[in-house]
Amino acid sequence: MLDQFKVKEADAVRVDESPLRDTVRQIFSKMGVPDSDCEVATDVLVTADIRGVDTHGVSNMLRAYVNGYGKGELNPRPNWRIIRETPATATVDSDRGLGIVVVPKAMEIAIDKAKKVGLGMVTINNGRHLGMASYHAMMALEHDMIGLCMTSCPPSVLPTFGAEPRLGTNPIALAAPADKEPPFVFDAAMSTVAGNKLGLARRLGNDLLPGWVGDSDGIPIMDAVEPPMPDYEGRASSHLLPLGSTRELGSHKGYGLAGIVDILGGMLSGGGYGANPGRPNFGHSVAAYSIEAFTDVRQFKRTMDEWLQMLRTTAPAKGHDRVLYPGLPEAETADDRRANGIPFHPEVIEWFRDICGELSIPFTLA
Amino acid sequence: MLDQFKVKEADAVRVDESPLRDTVRQIFSKMGVPDSDCEVATDVLVTADIRGVDTHGVSNMLRAYVNGYGKGELNPRPNWRIIRETPATATVDSDRGLGIVVVPKAMEIAIDKAKKVGLGMVTINNGRHLGMASYHAMMALEHDMIGLCMTSCPPSVLPTFGAEPRLGTNPIALAAPADKEPPFVFDAAMSTVAGNKLGLARRLGNDLLPGWVGDSDGIPIMDAVEPPMPDYEGRASSHLLPLGSTRELGSHKGYGLAGIVDILGGMLSGGGYGANPGRPNFGHSVAAYSIEAFTDVRQFKRTMDEWLQMLRTTAPAKGHDRVLYPGLPEAETADDRRANGIPFHPEVIEWFRDICGELSIPFTLA
Repeated sequence: MLDQFKVKEADAVRVDESPLRDTVRQIFSKMGVPDSDCEVATDVLVTADIRGVDTHGVSNMLRAYVNGYGKGELNPRPNWRIIRETPATATVDSDRGLGIVVVPKAMEIAIDKAKKVGLGMVTINNGRHLGMASYHAMMALEHDMIGLCMTSCPPSVLPTFGAEPRLGTNPIALAAPADKEPPFVFDAAMSTVAGNKLGLARRLGNDLLPGWVGDSDGIPIMDAVEPPMPDYEGRASSHLLPLGSTRELGSHKGYGLAGIVDILGGMLSGGGYGANPGRPNFGHSVAAYSIEAFTDVRQFKRTMDEWLQMLRTTAPAKGHDRVLYPGLPEAETADDRRANGIPFHPEVIEWFRDICGELSIPFTLA
Repeated sequence: MLDQFKVKEADAVRVDESPLRDTVRQIFSKMGVPDSDCEVATDVLVTADIRGVDTHGVSNMLRAYVNGYGKGELNPRPNWRIIRETPATATVDSDRGLGIVVVPKAMEIAIDKAKKVGLGMVTINNGRHLGMASYHAMMALEHDMIGLCMTSCPPSVLPTFGAEPRLGTNPIALAAPADKEPPFVFDAAMSTVAGNKLGLARRLGNDLLPGWVGDSDGIPIMDAVEPPMPDYEGRASSHLLPLGSTRELGSHKGYGLAGIVDILGGMLSGGGYGANPGRPNFGHSVAAYSIEAFTDVRQFKRTMDEWLQMLRTTAPAKGHDRVLYPGLPEAETADDRRANGIPFHPEVIEWFRDICGELSIPFTLA
């Protein structure tokens, strides 16, 4: 994460993983979510916080989920079901269940199929927010599989040359196991910056950077000015740009990649695409690739080690200490946060205090 | 394609598709390639020219292939074979066969598997240059399937914060059918710009644009200066940047996406990754997704139409005429070039004249 998005150490309140999990679990339970689903939902959220993916952890998302249950947009007891199936594929109707509850179950189905026929892919329609996409992809790792996850989101991103948002941030996550190295875990929006980063920037009082948004005429803002904040409700005076920012820098590639997610995550689920049906509806897609189906697993993992070591020992560019690979900083952050607690902005702690009071849950976080 | 990369109309020599195909077929035949393989190789190359993907058409690639056969890097009669297989997957040893010959056969296998179990994916090791990735992906369209293709290329791209190239341009292509609209066909390198674009820029006498390359210290060159040209042989004073150009604009995303291609296209084939074994070796990966396995095909195609129409009727940004979608300009170019011939730089025509003379093939292109 860019330094500007980190909670300043002096401001941070560090919370241990265990009481955080207890609290989050009880909040989901108060929303009417069954116990086993509370467990998995908590694991998805807190794993994001542990890995330093603060945009998808409790600070940004839990309050949104509580609001969603309150407004009836989220079904706490979804009757999700497989509506179409082949040996390698399934399509799931999520019955308005939160993605952090239903998608792990879909990923289990994909993994089972990959065990049997080499690959498994499950699309999920009528879904709700996915949480951290890489959580679902990482479920494949312990099975010696590669995991993939994507989600077709409501529109907030301008197509190249366009003045109206048509595509979601549409993240893609892929996790692949290594032997001794931390696994490769990629997880990124196909916009220049994740939508949730804007909320985080607002909370931390930071400007947006050049190349992140286009103005109301659709022109990419490439100067170091303070751009207006999009508000996601159609009244925005600026919108996110696809990865690549401008046509010359390759924004048509970010635009096309976001389109792929609308197809594989949205349309292939039979549930439309990001812009239609639109918020709060999301279409998801998960896949599992059995490494054993393609090649020798031990050799694959050793080659992964060699490749990841090559990447992280690349001579650094002037002014930089080292080269990272996707998943390496997250693994390092997880080690730190498991040992020393998760740093939260005091505002987040206050929200927990309030919601615990409101729901009659003991407040144990500070 | 950016205007600067188009052959100037005044300079162009227009060649009809039919004599071009005849000539290309005979050149492959003179290289010792069997007749049916000449047919498919020609189709891959000329389809790139027809669709306006000049970087992967005859002008850039055919001379490279002729050199490769001459040097023995390419096997004209590869004994390619399946070395591992499950119901949904296969791994192919390409026996140094050119990708434009072997990968279409791998894609046929993937399509057959998708017919039976919903998905099919084939990885190809010991491969050689892929040609236009979207050709292989588009093979799925007539079967009412979505096609995917990627290739793990020798290193030419800097990792974020790195000063040494570690990843290939590693293109990803995905094709998905619509009903009445031209299909969605995405095909892009995960670098800011495709490697072949540099050769094309050299031929056309154009500068590279800011954000395309990093200097020898690994610093992204973001000014409008004339940057030095990389030469791909390790002696380069500049290297390509991943899609996103700088960390602030999201280059870690382009870097990670290129990494995904090294994993799915390279390591999952059992043949290493771009940097190892390195040129002229490439690992490829193709996949086919049966739409019928997931959802109703007619409904899917109608929804694709609706989505593609939404994209191309987006209000354009100030200074632009219209919004495109991936595959739309290529379909329009194909209509034009089928009717009016393919425009080539005179230097390309001269190369054809020379090679036809050398190989005793009648020269019929001008």
